[in-house]
Amino acid sequence: MQYNVIFQPSGRRCEVSQGKTILQVSRESGVDIEAPCGGAGTCGKCKVKVEAGFCNLAPLTGQEKRMLTPEEMVDHFRLACCAKIEGDVLVFVPEQSSSAKQVILETASERQVNLNPAIKKYVVEMEKPTLEDYRDDFRRLKDALIRSYSHLNADIGIDYNVLLTLPDTLRKGKWKVTVTLWQDTEMIAVEPGLVENAYGIAVDIGTTTIAAYLCDLATGKVLKSDSMMNSQVRYGDDVISRISHCMMHDGGLDRMHQMIIDDINALILRLAQAVAISNENIYEMVLVFNTAMHHITLNIDPRYMGSAPFTSAIRMPMNIKARDLGIKIAKSGNIHCLPVEAGFVGADNVSVLIAEEPYKQEKMMLVIDIGTNGEIALGNEDCMMSTSCATGPALEGAQIKHGMRAAPGAIERVKINRATYEPECKVIGEKMDARGICGSGIIDAVAELFKAGMILADGRFNKKLTSPRLQKGADGKQEYVLVWAGQTAIGQDITITQKDIRAVQLAKAALYAGAKILMKKRGVNKVDGVTLAGAFGSYINKESALVIGMFPDCALESITAAGNAAGEGAKLALLDTNKRLEAKEVAAFVQFVETAAEADFQTHFYDAMCFPHAKDAFPHIQQILDGISARS
Amino acid sequence: MQYNVIFQPSGRRCEVSQGKTILQVSRESGVDIEAPCGGAGTCGKCKVKVEAGFCNLAPLTGQEKRMLTPEEMVDHFRLACCAKIEGDVLVFVPEQSSSAKQVILETASERQVNLNPAIKKYVVEMEKPTLEDYRDDFRRLKDALIRSYSHLNADIGIDYNVLLTLPDTLRKGKWKVTVTLWQDTEMIAVEPGLVENAYGIAVDIGTTTIAAYLCDLATGKVLKSDSMMNSQVRYGDDVISRISHCMMHDGGLDRMHQMIIDDINALILRLAQAVAISNENIYEMVLVFNTAMHHITLNIDPRYMGSAPFTSAIRMPMNIKARDLGIKIAKSGNIHCLPVEAGFVGADNVSVLIAEEPYKQEKMMLVIDIGTNGEIALGNEDCMMSTSCATGPALEGAQIKHGMRAAPGAIERVKINRATYEPECKVIGEKMDARGICGSGIIDAVAELFKAGMILADGRFNKKLTSPRLQKGADGKQEYVLVWAGQTAIGQDITITQKDIRAVQLAKAALYAGAKILMKKRGVNKVDGVTLAGAFGSYINKESALVIGMFPDCALESITAAGNAAGEGAKLALLDTNKRLEAKEVAAFVQFVETAAEADFQTHFYDAMCFPHAKDAFPHIQQILDGISARS
Repeated sequence: MQYNVIFQPSGRRCEVSQGKTILQVSRESGVDIEAPCGGAGTCGKCKVKVEAGFCNLAPLTGQEKRMLTPEEMVDHFRLACCAKIEGDVLVFVPEQSSSAKQVILETASERQVNLNPAIKKYVVEMEKPTLEDYRDDFRRLKDALIRSYSHLNADIGIDYNVLLTLPDTLRKGKWKVTVTLWQDTEMIAVEPGLVENAYGIAVDIGTTTIAAYLCDLATGKVLKSDSMMNSQVRYGDDVISRISHCMMHDGGLDRMHQMIIDDINALILRLAQAVAISNENIYEMVLVFNTAMHHITLNIDPRYMGSAPFTSAIRMPMNIKARDLGIKIAKSGNIHCLPVEAGFVGADNVSVLIAEEPYKQEKMMLVIDIGTNGEIALGNEDCMMSTSCATGPALEGAQIKHGMRAAPGAIERVKINRATYEPECKVIGEKMDARGICGSGIIDAVAELFKAGMILADGRFNKKLTSPRLQKGADGKQEYVLVWAGQTAIGQDITITQKDIRAVQLAKAALYAGAKILMKKRGVNKVDGVTLAGAFGSYINKESALVIGMFPDCALESITAAGNAAGEGAKLALLDTNKRLEAKEVAAFVQFVETAAEADFQTHFYDAMCFPHAKDAFPHIQQILDGISARS
Repeated sequence: MQYNVIFQPSGRRCEVSQGKTILQVSRESGVDIEAPCGGAGTCGKCKVKVEAGFCNLAPLTGQEKRMLTPEEMVDHFRLACCAKIEGDVLVFVPEQSSSAKQVILETASERQVNLNPAIKKYVVEMEKPTLEDYRDDFRRLKDALIRSYSHLNADIGIDYNVLLTLPDTLRKGKWKVTVTLWQDTEMIAVEPGLVENAYGIAVDIGTTTIAAYLCDLATGKVLKSDSMMNSQVRYGDDVISRISHCMMHDGGLDRMHQMIIDDINALILRLAQAVAISNENIYEMVLVFNTAMHHITLNIDPRYMGSAPFTSAIRMPMNIKARDLGIKIAKSGNIHCLPVEAGFVGADNVSVLIAEEPYKQEKMMLVIDIGTNGEIALGNEDCMMSTSCATGPALEGAQIKHGMRAAPGAIERVKINRATYEPECKVIGEKMDARGICGSGIIDAVAELFKAGMILADGRFNKKLTSPRLQKGADGKQEYVLVWAGQTAIGQDITITQKDIRAVQLAKAALYAGAKILMKKRGVNKVDGVTLAGAFGSYINKESALVIGMFPDCALESITAAGNAAGEGAKLALLDTNKRLEAKEVAAFVQFVETAAEADFQTHFYDAMCFPHAKDAFPHIQQILDGISARS
């Protein structure tokens, strides 16, 4: 008897026979579950949550009853080493049980920051009240503030929550206090005496990962970065599955909203503890996200952006009181959300643009943000256009047979010898045996297979070739063995299947067709440079990307990786309010094109399924392409 | 054995012998407790709360165990007809158990209202989104709004809470909705289809009574008025005792804040139910209050305004989101608080001024708001001054031996025959026997005793006179019998004591001295008119008030009663935003004088202790005064 087991968030699927434990199955299929005790049921580290098919597991063992709390049992947690599989199950591996901690990209480029945050602190001293000088506390404070700082004006207000403790604070500080102003217009904190610390957090809420940057608002320095998995991944890998969950389940939106708020609060706590500061001294937060995450984070129903005409609730930038969102920074602090462009082109894309500033250049730039969704912007100082492409998560290693996140054990680089067809694989982590392939490894593998003539321009395996590496898989279809079972950590061949190649073709064709339509609309037939944003963009081999035709031809030296540009933009907006104005302007300036709705999209998409393309020339890699033609 | 029993909120005190029930004692001392079953323990209407001395009552009877809920027993509720007194107790009579419902003054003067509320509703129709017209929902709505109503501008924002349901609302209304704007700048509600109803509530939060007026914002009509006792009265009659409670008890402020919010919410519910509307269609509330109630309502520590230099936390007008205060009107509605003047001269006084508009007149007006605290404003279009006077609650019938609120059974008018010394009393309520004396009755009684020559200018009883009505009281001191025991509802003589007269002297001297100092500062020695604001001001006999010298001389026809002018001002501010600007201006325009801090205050106060005054002439009642001199 064979059962289906699916692991989340990796999406890894496998068929297993009765009686194996979840831990055994996870090891065989390259899913990372921590088990320092070696599966003896004594460390309790391998807790997993059974999302579906709880009744298809053998009953709780004595060890589990000892190691799991009653709440965990109610919530369908099991120890992976104990729970035996007796039917189909869907297993969620929480981040803390995952042994593969995600690799976090440190940004390469140090961008110039013009320090002009919304949060400024002012020390103020004032006279005590007397029977003759009976001004109220707020007025006394405001008068002293304006007297000491002449650039401030008399319209300064005070947040209601700050007012509540103002009388005590002034007297506790013996009429010397530190006022925190937001935009120099509203008092959002008043603290007794001199309190110099002023912090803010920039957060990039991705579909899969949430990255947060704690900044010192006085110096502009990033004090600490941290990231965690978006807890919503248990409801699916992509934004469409998240939106579906909101639509199909009562209270689904509330639950997912609360999850993301809890995630943000967990990150705030970790960051604050790491540098030993109080979260009350974190006065502002800037959020960037794609439009679905934007809506869910703000608790706005995203259902209408899930289907045509993909209407979002609001696109303009917003300042929301942290308390209205339940975010635990200073009580009267604001959460600034960068503006949304349109449909799925979200604030994260705006954030990439303000980090990269293509709209300030003469050169015609193509900016590609490769995440679970692909966003493309094309243009220069005269005009900018953008679109989003349904690439799917294949380029991130999901929905690929042996795909995995960029974590230790992942194959990230592949070279294939064009004479012997033998591969050379680089694995993340020192002396690690391979467990799977991450996004950059897949792009490399497909490009190398194409360059070696093992797959044809249409993506099919070349039937004329023979090699021990080319074999029939379990499904009877052709596959290429990257690593033999004996050399892996999972005890089975790590292969690239025909289906994997198809997934890459679909993803890259979506990107290419989007870029092509924008170029046509813009009236250009070549670009001067390509910027790859997103962590994944930093790891891929540019030549491989060009060889498979992920985007139109461009000089290799003009293709640059921008790292997590969305996070960079969020930091810039946190540290410089002029960048917020720029974001607002660019969101309005960029012309959104619904490329999928264009009449010739299907034609462009079909042509782009080929490696590198059915019609377009690639002069910058012509030599490589000539080599392939010569062989076949 | 004699025990002390004190009833709240009336403050009535009495000595009783062992074994009497609370109901018996309440009847003997003129405290109104409802008991339709005649004290048989079967109706459960006479519930009272024992605030102190719970152990000094006989144990719970079987009837009480049947009639009281477990929560009520825990909260020290008893049935007044069952609970026998065996020691000192402090009993609180909740409003629902009080048979003496307060008399609510219906305003006489119909003021002109220029209808221009902050809340305006706009019906908007818009086109559906399409792939070509991908504007976000908010933008689509705003564009349609501005297109249809040309006076609106593009800066219109949206409250975060409204945004949460915006996508659903637009589609539910089939792209036709009603937008509620606040100040034509912020969307605070969007409802599907056409929803014309727009309501607001003006609330006057007094130390003793909370009055609320539900208004139709489209017509300006008052649909329903209601009032209730301020639940805080259990913590004392005056603002100082409330401030003390905040200072002396942990969580005291939070508790009192919550009480008043609960009271306001109870009034909202009653008003909404009375006219069968949804509280979601109540979009704004205007609050007026004295400064102590202002602070406590907003949950701001009032301790620093309780002692010199009486500093308030904030005086400027405020708009606070209803949700931040826990007030249950429309979620995104605002609570507008009128500005505070200074110290104890609160937003209620500003409210009186915008209702009476003395600052628009040439005539020199004296505006006296008589409540638990007395506030005085003097001036005309050139200059306004104000002060507050510690009158104490004597003029409202508290701290007077047989004093009571203006409720059925209260003596409200007194005439004394100058030949026979026999009184003629008018009691509130048809054919009711007297239970006590309310404020206007006390003023009358003292003025009549003075006019009859029974008390002298210094307030002492005239020892030369004899009358059966003049007797020694239980304390061995002289008193005047207004109603013989047999003709009362309480079975004992209702008298005016020497102590009562002293209390009236102290109260009126405080008022007079305050007015006199303002007049001196303003450089005038007479006023052209006197306006008496406050419900009490409407009931007092002007001649009696002038005879005892409550305020400086003025023609009787120029003394007018303004009713609850504070409530009127609140209504005006609710219905006309120009009145809010006027309030802000007048709060800044009025010059506050801390009269009690003036060097000659004591002299003025001392002189004003006399009836009508030790030195000042009263030409307008000279004939009456001459009559008194002729007799003595």
